[in-house]
Amino acid sequence: MPGEQISKVIASKSPSHPVGSVVRAFSGWRTHTLVSNEQAQGIGRIPEMSDLPLSLALGTMGMTGMTAYFGFLELCQPKEGDTVLVNGAAGAVGSLVGQIAKIKGCKVVGCAGTDDKCKWLKELGFDEVFNYKKVDLSEALKAAAPDGFDCFFDNIGADFTATALKHMKQFGRVSICGQMSVYNNKELPRAEYPFMLILGKQLKVEGFNVMRWYPRWAEGEKVMAQWIKEGKIKYKETITKGFRNMPNAFIGLFDGANTGKAIVTA
Amino acid sequence: MPGEQISKVIASKSPSHPVGSVVRAFSGWRTHTLVSNEQAQGIGRIPEMSDLPLSLALGTMGMTGMTAYFGFLELCQPKEGDTVLVNGAAGAVGSLVGQIAKIKGCKVVGCAGTDDKCKWLKELGFDEVFNYKKVDLSEALKAAAPDGFDCFFDNIGADFTATALKHMKQFGRVSICGQMSVYNNKELPRAEYPFMLILGKQLKVEGFNVMRWYPRWAEGEKVMAQWIKEGKIKYKETITKGFRNMPNAFIGLFDGANTGKAIVTA
Repeated sequence: MPGEQISKVIASKSPSHPVGSVVRAFSGWRTHTLVSNEQAQGIGRIPEMSDLPLSLALGTMGMTGMTAYFGFLELCQPKEGDTVLVNGAAGAVGSLVGQIAKIKGCKVVGCAGTDDKCKWLKELGFDEVFNYKKVDLSEALKAAAPDGFDCFFDNIGADFTATALKHMKQFGRVSICGQMSVYNNKELPRAEYPFMLILGKQLKVEGFNVMRWYPRWAEGEKVMAQWIKEGKIKYKETITKGFRNMPNAFIGLFDGANTGKAIVTA
Repeated sequence: MPGEQISKVIASKSPSHPVGSVVRAFSGWRTHTLVSNEQAQGIGRIPEMSDLPLSLALGTMGMTGMTAYFGFLELCQPKEGDTVLVNGAAGAVGSLVGQIAKIKGCKVVGCAGTDDKCKWLKELGFDEVFNYKKVDLSEALKAAAPDGFDCFFDNIGADFTATALKHMKQFGRVSICGQMSVYNNKELPRAEYPFMLILGKQLKVEGFNVMRWYPRWAEGEKVMAQWIKEGKIKYKETITKGFRNMPNAFIGLFDGANTGKAIVTA
């Protein structure tokens, strides 16, 4: 089973990775991993964590955090005073995007699928929050942002997105991070085709994979560490202890049992 | 009826627009127009035409040309060796986009709806041309560009576009200029929702109105004039003489009787 982990080197013939050093790698679900010299090229450095917990290197200080940081800032180009929409906002990435948008002086509208998640989003400082399962989406978006959205960070796709695009402002920016509503489809869903809206509103829409910014991760990690220490970025982790409990932690990803990043520790 | 025209000033109280000067304005379908001082602010300068026909200021040297020039170059960011797809390629804008792409060292694939139009596209230097009414679109795109497209200049929309996106390369750029297949719909058409493709291929998709670059038109006009003089850009105009024939010229826009820019002269 694939998975990213933080590991301690307990035996080594490589001067780059001496015994006792800590590495971040996509080693999969393993207690011990033997890595050849060639594979060792793919072992990543750990960010500068100072006194932050190591687990953050898999979440807010890792791929999750960099996805929010670069995917939002680079593609949405938020400016102070902009109005930002985030769906799947209680997810590990969405919750960070909303907080980053607040740091940048934006008004942030988020939605999630349970009232508890919505309550947490308010605690994080989201300006407007709604449970999308309990509202008429178009009315809720209109109420939350009567003048429309400058930025939209999309985790959901299809019908949600087709509706949200109608509430974008001229020259709005859309960053496509995920399409949760589509992943399980065997074929692409049919929905209102959005190009006429993208044309009429002169929107810029872009999809991304965070690895395109891998050469710049150290830059993002540094800023994220600073924000965490300043209390501007809050995070949740659901920590499961013991490798043998890994399957339960995994199932938790799908039944909503986890909040924030799911972490398994030895 | 709205319409852009080139007019000669025959009486004037404005030092900016002396008698005998020529202006470009959205005066509508009129033989004579009385313009107040305030309205005169909206009267545009004529580009530097040297010995090119004045009618070009309404086409290749006007809004049509600038739409192709800025809408393609700014949003698609073509690089030498890129493969470019243009639909509605025999239209006034599409035919220019294809030629500009050739000037920039790209391989250009265009499609149109009649064999005559396709023949003209080959004369213009398009590398691959097909009549989209006579082919399976996906197969034709695959045959024309087995490795996919870096750039796509879209005039059509909906099902055509949904299919074309499947043939984009990673990091492809899509410039949305028009959505001809949608304009007459009362509601947005439903088609395969494209965000999953945009995500997976990390595409950048942007809609535009050429007026956003109005402050830079002089720059585009200068380059376009140079290309026309060098024979690198060819154009067609369908010229109708006499204002009373204007309705026929207008109907010609819809029944395919015109090729290139439709011009009515006094």
